[in-house]
Amino acid sequence: MKLSNYFLPIIKEIPSDAKIKSHQLMIRTGMIRQSTSGIYSWLPLGFKILKKIENIVRDEQNKAGAIEMLMPTIQSAEIWKESGRYDSYGQEMLKINDRQKRELLYGPTNEELITQIFRDNIKSYKSLPLLLYHIQWKFRDEIRPRFGIMRCREFLMKDTYSFDLNEKNAEISYYKMMLSYLKTFERFNLKAIPVKADTGPIGGNLSHEFIILADTGESEIFTDSEIFNFETKLLEYNDVSLKKLSSHFSKFYSSTSDLHDVNKFQKQVPKKNQIIKKGVEVGHIFYFGQKYSKSLNAIVNTRESKSVNVYMGSYGIGVSRLVGAIIEANYNNNFMKWPKSVTPFQAVIINLGKDNDTVTIKANNLYQKLIHNKFDVILDDTDANPSSKFKNFELIGIPFQIIVGSKHHDDEFEFKELGKDSKIVNLDSLISILKEEYSNC
Amino acid sequence: MKLSNYFLPIIKEIPSDAKIKSHQLMIRTGMIRQSTSGIYSWLPLGFKILKKIENIVRDEQNKAGAIEMLMPTIQSAEIWKESGRYDSYGQEMLKINDRQKRELLYGPTNEELITQIFRDNIKSYKSLPLLLYHIQWKFRDEIRPRFGIMRCREFLMKDTYSFDLNEKNAEISYYKMMLSYLKTFERFNLKAIPVKADTGPIGGNLSHEFIILADTGESEIFTDSEIFNFETKLLEYNDVSLKKLSSHFSKFYSSTSDLHDVNKFQKQVPKKNQIIKKGVEVGHIFYFGQKYSKSLNAIVNTRESKSVNVYMGSYGIGVSRLVGAIIEANYNNNFMKWPKSVTPFQAVIINLGKDNDTVTIKANNLYQKLIHNKFDVILDDTDANPSSKFKNFELIGIPFQIIVGSKHHDDEFEFKELGKDSKIVNLDSLISILKEEYSNC
Repeated sequence: MKLSNYFLPIIKEIPSDAKIKSHQLMIRTGMIRQSTSGIYSWLPLGFKILKKIENIVRDEQNKAGAIEMLMPTIQSAEIWKESGRYDSYGQEMLKINDRQKRELLYGPTNEELITQIFRDNIKSYKSLPLLLYHIQWKFRDEIRPRFGIMRCREFLMKDTYSFDLNEKNAEISYYKMMLSYLKTFERFNLKAIPVKADTGPIGGNLSHEFIILADTGESEIFTDSEIFNFETKLLEYNDVSLKKLSSHFSKFYSSTSDLHDVNKFQKQVPKKNQIIKKGVEVGHIFYFGQKYSKSLNAIVNTRESKSVNVYMGSYGIGVSRLVGAIIEANYNNNFMKWPKSVTPFQAVIINLGKDNDTVTIKANNLYQKLIHNKFDVILDDTDANPSSKFKNFELIGIPFQIIVGSKHHDDEFEFKELGKDSKIVNLDSLISILKEEYSNC
Repeated sequence: MKLSNYFLPIIKEIPSDAKIKSHQLMIRTGMIRQSTSGIYSWLPLGFKILKKIENIVRDEQNKAGAIEMLMPTIQSAEIWKESGRYDSYGQEMLKINDRQKRELLYGPTNEELITQIFRDNIKSYKSLPLLLYHIQWKFRDEIRPRFGIMRCREFLMKDTYSFDLNEKNAEISYYKMMLSYLKTFERFNLKAIPVKADTGPIGGNLSHEFIILADTGESEIFTDSEIFNFETKLLEYNDVSLKKLSSHFSKFYSSTSDLHDVNKFQKQVPKKNQIIKKGVEVGHIFYFGQKYSKSLNAIVNTRESKSVNVYMGSYGIGVSRLVGAIIEANYNNNFMKWPKSVTPFQAVIINLGKDNDTVTIKANNLYQKLIHNKFDVILDDTDANPSSKFKNFELIGIPFQIIVGSKHHDDEFEFKELGKDSKIVNLDSLISILKEEYSNC
């Protein structure tokens, strides 16, 4: 992409209404613009990052055996009346009347709708276990939207629903999702831990929030530092791995403030291991058994021809919120560097030349060669002055810069990884370095 | 994918409320399920096809130089009041009040919002020309939703907006999009022609609908058969190509019924070339100049430091509707075969064996080998009887079947392209055939 053809409105000043780092950076680098309270447009830079995050979330869901589908944003009030949540959900539900005065709503979550789909289409134990997911925009009518896309009203969420024949199998599905979440967050270089949590309006018996530590987080967590000593790389979706996983995370105390038990915490966690910190919630998983399958009458026939209400769980990842969470975890002291898996561009070429001079030709040739080698790079070909080009791209946080100026020989480029010293490289080594750096993405 | 792990609810009977072919097929093959009037869930099979269509639309937009972003589904009423369309748009606009009684609406189209984004972020001619697009769910509160996803309320649309400094440049953007649309529809094997159309509630001076001929279509078109004699393959996004394009489609009479002029039609089109047919609208492009940039005050500074209201156009493709349109064009006499570019699976392996017998092992091995070779195949590993397996997959219309039974040698498979005779092939030639067949997708 050439910057002169792109749409990247940078703002020099920190916007006064943006209180947290991610909100500030997203506005300043033209990732998002608010269209009305708590509702945002994603401009090209932000959209690209959002899409990369979405694709990683999708990839890990598929690897865990979940099957993608898509439910609509607008739902009928009827099924919510059947489950009893139409009145109990509260004012965060955006209720709508259509032109025929039928009651609709903008889905804040999808337990009812997926249960209805299950009930209408699946009758036999042979179809179980089943994990269905979708990635869709949701709406919760926050009374006081703030912090940009971290606490907004319209947001992108991945939600998965599990269907099992009994509680034992349902627990396997639950830990499959827990493992898939840990693997997902690791791909963003985020250390997220599952913390025991209240089930809230979803309901149920068992629930974990996935929290990444960040001072600006709204959740407070209490846990044991040992909980972080856990590797998921070698774990697969089999019984042995899932048992390892569940036993590790049951062994150590962890809790959100809702469920926190001070005495238990003091007794169970050695003083030196006690962690009390703020964090950002990036995912939440629930096991609620037959709660919705009973109220909505979702029944399967067993091998023995008995009827059983299916056992269910639900599993959410805040896809749009992850954009903010990744920034909160990486943007410190005015320095940002995107993880390589989600950086909007793999490198920026900063052309220090003027119209049609040899430097500009060299920068253009390099751009063509990198595109030809399938790198996704942006060329700053504008007539802005050098210092403003450097400032803008340091602000954006693209991990690698290639600076093309008049100081170097024909086949030499200044290559700089953000936060490190620059070095002079030729085209071949430039290509090898980038290939190596992005080999795991 | 193994069918036993998939979610593919097939219905034997033709649903009584489904009047047109695409609606019938989509319900019967478990592609969609209605959740409430005019609002559908996309089950895995339908979702996969929808996603493939979306990705092709996206790819052709990118090739045309349009930049992707994403606007929200919910918009503030304010900007619609500024443009004057809040009252004039009519009852198809789904109006919403949030908990604070602020007026919102579910976007039926995005001219206002994109103009607001432009006005707030772009000030200089240097940023032009600009083509921005997004692919997002929209809502139009149809009084009588029908024909499944062909005339529904919540639907997926790609809409692009062009911004230019003057009318002449705006026309170039218009024909760029026209070319990109023709290229897009060709990738679905659809012959869509641009037909002069009324501008409706979008407004403006120039407008074409893209229509594919289909007896079940709701649009009636009048044109000259010569209009179809046009190749886009060699055309690129340059002045010469775009001139060829505009002169071809201006040369021949074409009109929707709204604008049809019987006398002109009779005079201009030789009797033998006259086409009066039903068709399905799959895209619509508009040039409306300064209509929204004036009402919403979107101004850029020219090179000469003058202020000019930007010249705009908008360009829509009905992404979810295309699923139906492709079926209408391909499903005849109870026979369906998906175009290779969008088939949900590239081939189906039909296992005629029983639990753990050698045939089943052979089918499983074949499945693993094809997956390993990066083919996206589905293995019917269920215990359904052979005739029902054949019936289901013929109904679905996956173009290639590989039948694994006891009749053949170890390294032999029965390979059948739908609508053709089957032949016996070994694994290597099977892989070469599939590679060859999908080489252009």
